[in-house]
Amino acid sequence: MTAKILDGREVAEALRQELDAQLQSFKQRSGVTPTIALVRAGADPASVSYAGTIERGFVKRGMGFVPRILPETATQAQIVDTVSELNAQAVVHGIMIQEPLPRGVDPAAIIAALSPEKDVDGVHPLNSGRLAQVAPAGRDPGVGHYLVPATPAGGLEILKHYQVPLAGQHAVVVGRSNIVGKPMALLLLRENATVTICHSRTADLAAVCRQGDILCVAIGRARMVKGDWIKSGAAVIDFGVNFADGKMCGDVDYDQAIEAAGMITPVPGGTGPVTNVMLMRNVLDAAMTQVCAGGS
Amino acid sequence: MTAKILDGREVAEALRQELDAQLQSFKQRSGVTPTIALVRAGADPASVSYAGTIERGFVKRGMGFVPRILPETATQAQIVDTVSELNAQAVVHGIMIQEPLPRGVDPAAIIAALSPEKDVDGVHPLNSGRLAQVAPAGRDPGVGHYLVPATPAGGLEILKHYQVPLAGQHAVVVGRSNIVGKPMALLLLRENATVTICHSRTADLAAVCRQGDILCVAIGRARMVKGDWIKSGAAVIDFGVNFADGKMCGDVDYDQAIEAAGMITPVPGGTGPVTNVMLMRNVLDAAMTQVCAGGS
Repeated sequence: MTAKILDGREVAEALRQELDAQLQSFKQRSGVTPTIALVRAGADPASVSYAGTIERGFVKRGMGFVPRILPETATQAQIVDTVSELNAQAVVHGIMIQEPLPRGVDPAAIIAALSPEKDVDGVHPLNSGRLAQVAPAGRDPGVGHYLVPATPAGGLEILKHYQVPLAGQHAVVVGRSNIVGKPMALLLLRENATVTICHSRTADLAAVCRQGDILCVAIGRARMVKGDWIKSGAAVIDFGVNFADGKMCGDVDYDQAIEAAGMITPVPGGTGPVTNVMLMRNVLDAAMTQVCAGGS
Repeated sequence: MTAKILDGREVAEALRQELDAQLQSFKQRSGVTPTIALVRAGADPASVSYAGTIERGFVKRGMGFVPRILPETATQAQIVDTVSELNAQAVVHGIMIQEPLPRGVDPAAIIAALSPEKDVDGVHPLNSGRLAQVAPAGRDPGVGHYLVPATPAGGLEILKHYQVPLAGQHAVVVGRSNIVGKPMALLLLRENATVTICHSRTADLAAVCRQGDILCVAIGRARMVKGDWIKSGAAVIDFGVNFADGKMCGDVDYDQAIEAAGMITPVPGGTGPVTNVMLMRNVLDAAMTQVCAGGS
C-alpha cells in the first residue's frame, strides 16, 4: 500500500481562499490594511530569501509589508528600540524578528520587547503560556487571545483538512523546539490527542515513533526517520527542510515512509506552503484584535 | 517485591533545612521578610483550612503571611483591585489566589491581573510560557525568571531527592491540568525525559501507563490507577488527594501498586508535604528576585 499524499499546496490554496474572504471583509469594514513588519540585522542569505517569500506573499494578497533592516553591527539596545517603535505604530499589526541575530544579542531580550499582540510568530512567552494553558477543544478556552507559531499551526491545519482523527489518538512529536515541536505537542493536546514528546535524549526513538497514529517530525536531520519507524497507516507530518545530494528533503525518509504510512506530507510541497499562509492568517488575526480593541 | 516508599515528609524536611539556611542568609543581608498574601472571596471550608496550613507553615519559618479576605459577594473588579494593590506593595512578595472564586468572576481575568513576579502559584501565563520555552537542563535556560506551580515542582524534588534517573527515561503523566499535569510534563521534558501526556480522552490508558519508567498521576479519582497499570519497577508519583471510605487516598491504588512499582509516594505523606515547602521556596525566590531588582 502506498500512502496518500497530504498535499500542502492544496491545503494552502483552501486556506488562502478563506483568508482572502476574511481579509476583504475586514478591509472594507475597517479601512485597515493588515501589515507585517520584519526586523533583521544583517544580510544572512537564507533570511533575505525568506523575507522575499514573505514580501511577495503579503503584497499579492493586498497585505502590508514593512522591512526594518539594521546593520549586522546592530546592538541589542538598537534592536529593542526598533521593536519598541514598531510596537507603538498603529499601522503595523504584526512583527517578526528574523534570526540569526548579531553575536552578543540575547534573543530572549528581543522577544520580551515584542508586544504579545503583535507577536505573529508566536514566540513571546505570554503566547506560549496561553497555548500551554488553553483548555481542550470544545470547552471554554479559559485564556486570552493568543498567537501560535505558523509552522505547527499549519501542521494542524493539514491534519484537519484531511480529516485525520485526533481526539483519543496517540500523537508522537519528535523534536522539542519552541517554534515547532513543543507548540505542535500543545496543539495536539488541545485537540485531545494523547501526546508523546521525543528528542535527542529519547531511548529507542524508533520504537516510540512506531506508536504514533500521528507522527510529527521536526528534528532538522535529513531522512532520519526510516520506514520501519512508522506505524502502519499512520499520518506523518514532516516539518524538515534539509538539503542532501543537492535536493530538498525532509526529516523523514520519504521513499521508505510512503510504503508504511497511511498519509504523509512530501518535502517540498507539504508543511512549507501552509506555513506561509498561517503567517498571513496570524497577521490578519492580530490586526482584527488590535482594531477591534480587545480580545486579550 | 515491595516498592520503596518515596517519603514526602523526609523530602520536605530536607528542603526545609535548605530553605531555612537561604532564608536566614537573605533576611540578614536584606532586612526583608519574604511575605505571601493570600486572596480569597468567601469562606469555602477547604480553602479556609488550606489557608490555615499555609499561615502556620509561613509563621513557623519566620516568613510573612497577609490574608486579604473579601466577601463571597465580591465582584471581579473588586478582586482585581485587591490584586493590583498587592502588586504595588513592596512588602508583599508573593500573591496566591484561592479558588473557588465567586460565580461570574473569570479566573483568567484575576490571574492576568497578577504581577508575574509575585505569581508564587505559577499560574500566570507568562510563567507557564517561560516553563514551556525553557531549554533542557544543562543548557542556558534562554528564558527570564519564572515560577513553577508548587505541586509539580515538589513532585520533581521527590524524584531528585531519591535520585530517580530522568534523562532518557519514559515519563507518563496522567492528567493535564494547568496546575499539575501540564507543568509536570514540561518539568520532566526540561529534565530530558521522553514525556507522554494522557487524559480522559486517552485510549487504553492502562497500556500507556504501563510504558512509564516514571508515572505521575493527577486525575482526582480515588485509586483509579491499578497495580497492573504500572510497569514493573517504575517510580510512581501520586498527586491525588481524595477521600474514600472515610480515609484520605491517592489516585493510585496504593495496596496494589506497592507490589508492582519500584518506588511510590504514599497518600498522605507523599507529594502533599513537599508542596507546602515549595510554595515557601517560591515566595523566597520571588522576594530575592524583587529585592535584588531584576532576574526577569
